[in-house]
Amino acid sequence: MKDLLDRFKIKETRALARLISLLENEDPNHEEILKKIFQQTGRAYVIGFTGSPGAGKSSLVDQIVRKIRQQNQTVGIIAVDPTSPFTGGALLGDRIRMQEHALDKGVFIRSMGTRGSLGGLAKTTKDVVKAMDAFGFDWVIVETVGVGQAEYDIINVADTTIVVLTPGAGDSIQTIKAGIMEIADVFAINKADLPGADRVAAEVEIMLDHQCDQNKWRPPVKLVSSLTGQGINELLEAIMEHRSNMEVNDLINKIRSERIRSETLDIVNYKWQKKVYKQLSLPGKVNELLDQVTQKQIDPYTAAYSILDYVAKKTT
Amino acid sequence: MKDLLDRFKIKETRALARLISLLENEDPNHEEILKKIFQQTGRAYVIGFTGSPGAGKSSLVDQIVRKIRQQNQTVGIIAVDPTSPFTGGALLGDRIRMQEHALDKGVFIRSMGTRGSLGGLAKTTKDVVKAMDAFGFDWVIVETVGVGQAEYDIINVADTTIVVLTPGAGDSIQTIKAGIMEIADVFAINKADLPGADRVAAEVEIMLDHQCDQNKWRPPVKLVSSLTGQGINELLEAIMEHRSNMEVNDLINKIRSERIRSETLDIVNYKWQKKVYKQLSLPGKVNELLDQVTQKQIDPYTAAYSILDYVAKKTT
Repeated sequence: MKDLLDRFKIKETRALARLISLLENEDPNHEEILKKIFQQTGRAYVIGFTGSPGAGKSSLVDQIVRKIRQQNQTVGIIAVDPTSPFTGGALLGDRIRMQEHALDKGVFIRSMGTRGSLGGLAKTTKDVVKAMDAFGFDWVIVETVGVGQAEYDIINVADTTIVVLTPGAGDSIQTIKAGIMEIADVFAINKADLPGADRVAAEVEIMLDHQCDQNKWRPPVKLVSSLTGQGINELLEAIMEHRSNMEVNDLINKIRSERIRSETLDIVNYKWQKKVYKQLSLPGKVNELLDQVTQKQIDPYTAAYSILDYVAKKTT
Repeated sequence: MKDLLDRFKIKETRALARLISLLENEDPNHEEILKKIFQQTGRAYVIGFTGSPGAGKSSLVDQIVRKIRQQNQTVGIIAVDPTSPFTGGALLGDRIRMQEHALDKGVFIRSMGTRGSLGGLAKTTKDVVKAMDAFGFDWVIVETVGVGQAEYDIINVADTTIVVLTPGAGDSIQTIKAGIMEIADVFAINKADLPGADRVAAEVEIMLDHQCDQNKWRPPVKLVSSLTGQGINELLEAIMEHRSNMEVNDLINKIRSERIRSETLDIVNYKWQKKVYKQLSLPGKVNELLDQVTQKQIDPYTAAYSILDYVAKKTT
């Protein structure tokens, strides 16, 4: 363990990969790892990409990564793909495209499933972001398929969230869920070479006219093509603009502090529940009380208060 | 309070209405009420109706209620309507239809919003079911709009869940979410007088052919018309059949015991979180620890363990 963390500190890529696996598998050491790397977190800037399957998110990430590398900055990429429990899977084409970064030391790519989180972004995803951050990447990019809860969770991880839309029947503004519109810091209308892209952009602008609080950040809408490279510079500029806006008012530190507080409280509640479940797995007072409730000898509230007191007093 | 519970015990309808309001508003006395009525719960049989807006659930409930009343049994009805925060609202027509039961002492109707539960069935809905149950109704019917989480939560309240489908573009099996198919104990294909109803029924049957474990209950599929009354007897028979099936294997008591256990543990966790939030609202150790984490003086796990110990020791 110590050896692994030492190799992680001197930026050995294989140590990062190993450490991420331990976090992803919730290895008994994962808590120790997170404790040790915590000091080094909070330096990377995290961008989230979300959008429907087939919107071309991976190709767009690929283009953005090229630009970041041209500026000699480093980037860690996490592809969260709920449609595929194994690396590659449905997005194999995208993965192959990404391979050209594979020999680049400044780029690290990791695919993850969404197991154990009912469609949401797993806690393990957040942990992997922390590992990449602590490893020293300047940027971390999280790509999630805009399906289910993951598309909303992305704003709890990313400093800037990009919602990728495309022209085409399925992505007309009328059919886009209201929620996904509200999480965007930047809109990327991909496949700008296809007919209808302008219309999608115009529809988003109209919607922003109606919905935006005048004092709040208004998400820029950028026409891009991951195929031709059109608009990629402008997209990166829009991201940088949002970043500056976040930094000017120290908003970014406020948001990050709030996240750390809420993650810490999540750990408190998780550990509490573990204590309760431990008692449930043993014969003893907690199960006796629950049996008394199901037999209507005592009411649920009386039982709950006794359980609360009993579990609180247990030291393990 | 004692007076109200006494009047509730002698089945004064106005006492029931008042008690439900106290539960719904989470009045400081609501816990005391639930403790007092707990002994009397577990007698009513609870049916849940779910389905898309416009599927005709309320009219179907209305028809079922007539049949129940013809057998001289009593029924409490809870209409959970997330589209309308106030009684009446979008479903005014249905409510008016229900009015003919208004003078019938054997029927009690209550509309509820879904506030405070992010689209799910509020805990207060479960509490109101308990009040109707304890009051002595033979049946309790919960009607929820099949939107969001409420459609899945219904199975945690109902002994028999009826999924209402209708012929028409929007309700083709292809477009119905997989989840809602899995919660059905009985399917009611409403508006059987419209073209396409047979096809919907056939599609559901085919789906059941493919999905059902042979040893498990296979949901009957009933063509009904709340307009003409067609198939209502058969629907009620299907419900009774499912009820018998549940009672034969004592399945119903197992399920209800499991529910009471899990509701009791929910109370434990809710009370725990209240203890944590109380500390968050005060200056003191918990906020100090969280500040130390955001300032990176300690890591989230170390802070979480300290908070867990500290809050566990607090007696209030």
